[in-house]
Amino acid sequence: MDPDDLNPDEVAVLAVNQAFYDAFEARSLPHMDAVWLHSDEVVCTHPGWKPLVGWEAVRQSWASLLQNEEHLQFIVTELAVVLRSDMAVVRASENLLAGGQMRGSVATINVFVRDDGQWRMLAHHGSPVMRS
Amino acid sequence: MDPDDLNPDEVAVLAVNQAFYDAFEARSLPHMDAVWLHSDEVVCTHPGWKPLVGWEAVRQSWASLLQNEEHLQFIVTELAVVLRSDMAVVRASENLLAGGQMRGSVATINVFVRDDGQWRMLAHHGSPVMRS
Repeated sequence: MDPDDLNPDEVAVLAVNQAFYDAFEARSLPHMDAVWLHSDEVVCTHPGWKPLVGWEAVRQSWASLLQNEEHLQFIVTELAVVLRSDMAVVRASENLLAGGQMRGSVATINVFVRDDGQWRMLAHHGSPVMRS
Repeated sequence: MDPDDLNPDEVAVLAVNQAFYDAFEARSLPHMDAVWLHSDEVVCTHPGWKPLVGWEAVRQSWASLLQNEEHLQFIVTELAVVLRSDMAVVRASENLLAGGQMRGSVATINVFVRDDGQWRMLAHHGSPVMRS
């Protein structure tokens, strides 16, 4: 993905996508709140988990996960965005470091919708990569 | 999800979503061809795999997987669709039977785009459910 080929909407979507990982690394629930659409439509599938549906259940999971005191760092690679009008999908590989050690790789798809002029996360789905 | 609440576009998206599972069950590569967008933008993440990017790599994986002679059956539950103009996301749980035996549950997100008036699959991402 060549950054010069991105249009302003794609740049805005990728900024929110990055804000998601920044919120995770900073263990900031308020920042995570700002990333997501607050709607019954949202869905979040953490690696190996059943899907959590609706903002209340999704937020509850982040409230728990962000209490983890281990320092997590995401090296996001193979990033690409596909956008049509008011919805966009971002795919990426999350290469996770915990306490500076490689923890594994998660294949991810994030979906965003434009809500009142602001791009918000509608869906996050991460799955553990077990074979290449 | 109440079928009476769906608009015609949502009905059309869910029909293509169902055609995907029908093609898988029928082990039909031509039917799978018809479901997908044939584009470098497509991405397919089979459970536990790394993402496959671009139609050529995705089609090759289906050509291999559909040669499996085991009879697979998908009981698709917790189905919901969110649609904005020319893109839609479908979430579901795939409950897989192989030779009549329960094989496990896969959390799935499928993304569709409207291409020349026809909804096509842009992304399929399935992940094994390892804990509830």
